[in-house]
Amino acid sequence: LTTSAGFQHSELMEMQRILTAPHINSTRLWERHRAIAQIGATGRGGVNRQALTPEDAEARRLVLSWSEARNYSTTIDAIGNLFIRRPGTHPELAPVMTGSHLDTQPTGGNFDGVFGVLAGLEVFESLDDAGFVTKRPIELVIWMNEEGSRFTPATMGSAVCSGAIPLSNALETTDSNGTTVRDALSKHLTQLPKLEKRNLGTKGFAFVEAHIEQGPILEATGCQIGVVTGIQGLCIYEVEVVGFEAHAGTTPLSNRRDALVAAVDLIGKLQDEFQDPADVLRFTVGKFEVAPGSPNTVPGRVNFTIDLRHPNAEVLGRVGDAVMRICAGEIKRCSVTARPMLQSKPVEFHPQIIDIVRSAAVRRHLRHMNLVSGATHDSKFMSAQTPTAMIFVPCEKGISHNEAENVRKEDLFAGTQVLCDALVALLDTEI
Amino acid sequence: LTTSAGFQHSELMEMQRILTAPHINSTRLWERHRAIAQIGATGRGGVNRQALTPEDAEARRLVLSWSEARNYSTTIDAIGNLFIRRPGTHPELAPVMTGSHLDTQPTGGNFDGVFGVLAGLEVFESLDDAGFVTKRPIELVIWMNEEGSRFTPATMGSAVCSGAIPLSNALETTDSNGTTVRDALSKHLTQLPKLEKRNLGTKGFAFVEAHIEQGPILEATGCQIGVVTGIQGLCIYEVEVVGFEAHAGTTPLSNRRDALVAAVDLIGKLQDEFQDPADVLRFTVGKFEVAPGSPNTVPGRVNFTIDLRHPNAEVLGRVGDAVMRICAGEIKRCSVTARPMLQSKPVEFHPQIIDIVRSAAVRRHLRHMNLVSGATHDSKFMSAQTPTAMIFVPCEKGISHNEAENVRKEDLFAGTQVLCDALVALLDTEI
Repeated sequence: LTTSAGFQHSELMEMQRILTAPHINSTRLWERHRAIAQIGATGRGGVNRQALTPEDAEARRLVLSWSEARNYSTTIDAIGNLFIRRPGTHPELAPVMTGSHLDTQPTGGNFDGVFGVLAGLEVFESLDDAGFVTKRPIELVIWMNEEGSRFTPATMGSAVCSGAIPLSNALETTDSNGTTVRDALSKHLTQLPKLEKRNLGTKGFAFVEAHIEQGPILEATGCQIGVVTGIQGLCIYEVEVVGFEAHAGTTPLSNRRDALVAAVDLIGKLQDEFQDPADVLRFTVGKFEVAPGSPNTVPGRVNFTIDLRHPNAEVLGRVGDAVMRICAGEIKRCSVTARPMLQSKPVEFHPQIIDIVRSAAVRRHLRHMNLVSGATHDSKFMSAQTPTAMIFVPCEKGISHNEAENVRKEDLFAGTQVLCDALVALLDTEI
Repeated sequence: LTTSAGFQHSELMEMQRILTAPHINSTRLWERHRAIAQIGATGRGGVNRQALTPEDAEARRLVLSWSEARNYSTTIDAIGNLFIRRPGTHPELAPVMTGSHLDTQPTGGNFDGVFGVLAGLEVFESLDDAGFVTKRPIELVIWMNEEGSRFTPATMGSAVCSGAIPLSNALETTDSNGTTVRDALSKHLTQLPKLEKRNLGTKGFAFVEAHIEQGPILEATGCQIGVVTGIQGLCIYEVEVVGFEAHAGTTPLSNRRDALVAAVDLIGKLQDEFQDPADVLRFTVGKFEVAPGSPNTVPGRVNFTIDLRHPNAEVLGRVGDAVMRICAGEIKRCSVTARPMLQSKPVEFHPQIIDIVRSAAVRRHLRHMNLVSGATHDSKFMSAQTPTAMIFVPCEKGISHNEAENVRKEDLFAGTQVLCDALVALLDTEI
């Protein structure tokens, strides 16, 4: 079907959509980023707003207050994921969904997660301000415990919501003080306004998550938009090394069963095994706890984590097998065991949702590129049940999980506008 | 001067002394060990009674209650050392002293420190029960924070008392929660009965500390008494490695400044440097803290301690220099600094006090041997101002700083009797 001016009908429809699409309010969006950055601020430019802490609750209350001012309805599920809903004319239709998280690392930045939540809310309000009525409802999710720094594993809320982790397992998880998710969540609910309960297991029409890249590629290539086609695979292991506590002054080294010495030896072996000249494999020991942790006592126990990532499922499987092989049996007279905490295969996002994101970037004349996410996101679990894609914006020097995390305003606004355009497209599209 | 029976006069005097010397009450002594072991009991056979905790205060209150029942006077100095005094007929004379500590490691045993305190108190009460009047007063010290697990350095109380560490420095020391010794001590005082204050800086006539060996030598040689001739030298360093926090999924390994990777590399270098075929050098990394400690964040900072010990001052100086040389500058793109926390030269105890301890063991027909202490003790600082020696009793398999720490009753009683005999000898001796 071609019109007299030489345009295809579909092209005209797109032109019309772009002309009438809501424009985001960048001032409002930036102010809200500034407001959220106060909550849990460390005084060194970053934030400490770990999952289910008073700071996490305060950030959620602030977002809920903005939502209430617009009369959006809000529900919460059994693992503490929040769902803010803007109604459509056809409430029986599956919602178009967006969202991210408000929890942070202990020394986190101001954009990781927050951007996706505030960009989603900005889309809702831009739709309101433009008088936009949509057929489908639209929902903004604020996932619980994406970071996994207080309670492991990361992306706990979306994992439970999608059925990848049983609710009861997640609720029994403890932080380093022995507090369970169950108790922390129960306290958290008292810190939020009263919310309607919602069943676990959301199936949306589509899900698009906006996020900062958390890596250096977009900045290095001068792109403002990353069209995220998938997520690399991730395996997290917990390793326990058990030796025997002894007095540091009286115990000859040859008699010791020093768990720290064994753990250091193990990490050396793993480093040797994981040499990757292409520098694609990611191998991180991020948590490393020594007991009893006294200067004059030979350590009796070390617990550490291994975070392994690779875009290729076969490679990831092979290095995972190596972890289980190396971290087993007896090392330097200490016993060693490894336990997989999280095993997540590489994920490919939905081709049509990816295309819609790319089209939005194209229509706005934004420089963009395809990317595989190096970090895991809640979109991974969403994609198992809902057609999903992600939008990345560059962050300064690729720095994230760091208080120095920073984003250029124009990139943040561009990413939000692309999210808005993509969601608007989805709100009336059949896929 | 020789008597008609062929004995020297001095030999007869010794025989008389041993015939009239008080005999310790082993039932009472054992019951008190059992009572103290309840305080801070972990349920796994050991105790957690770190310095200036409520458990530490409870243990001190219990000992003070036994002391009060005997009407001994008690004073406390500005760093929280307790002094229990049994009067002599010549109060102007410098006291004969004994004592040890009640604080423990986080996963400590039931005899480390406690033995020396209860053995000292047992001597006092045995003197009372035997109606023994002494010329010199006798004092029992309960040192504050010998272990150094909550507040570093170890032997803080005796170090401050002897002037080796300024009081103000010690008071500003913080535990891992940021609580200062000043605040913890001030709270501690509210948990004790009201005590008379005493100036810092005690000069005794002599000091004898009874302690478990905390090493395997007495048991291996079948000795019940270690005549301790000195303490090996000790240096403690704090090392800080500063890298840069980054996201574990997105940051290529070649771009990282991973503080844990650098710290592991450092420890490997130190291990290579400190190879000792004679197995005399003690090298321990007991405290090792990783920040932020999140599985999916590349560590930005590691702080660890190095505990180095050797009986030879020259060797210890050389390995200490190696620590400062290796832990400096840039390692694996991270900056490294080392700071000496404690430098203590090997100590030789007073020959006459050593002889008195040995004579007591000989007279009681106890198998004994000379030993250099592998562990540091408060006796080190006491020996700088007061003629000092120590008495060791064997502990099972040399295990200490461990909840499995154990001592045979007969050895504990033998050590207490030797302490009693040595103190009695000192109470009337000129040296």
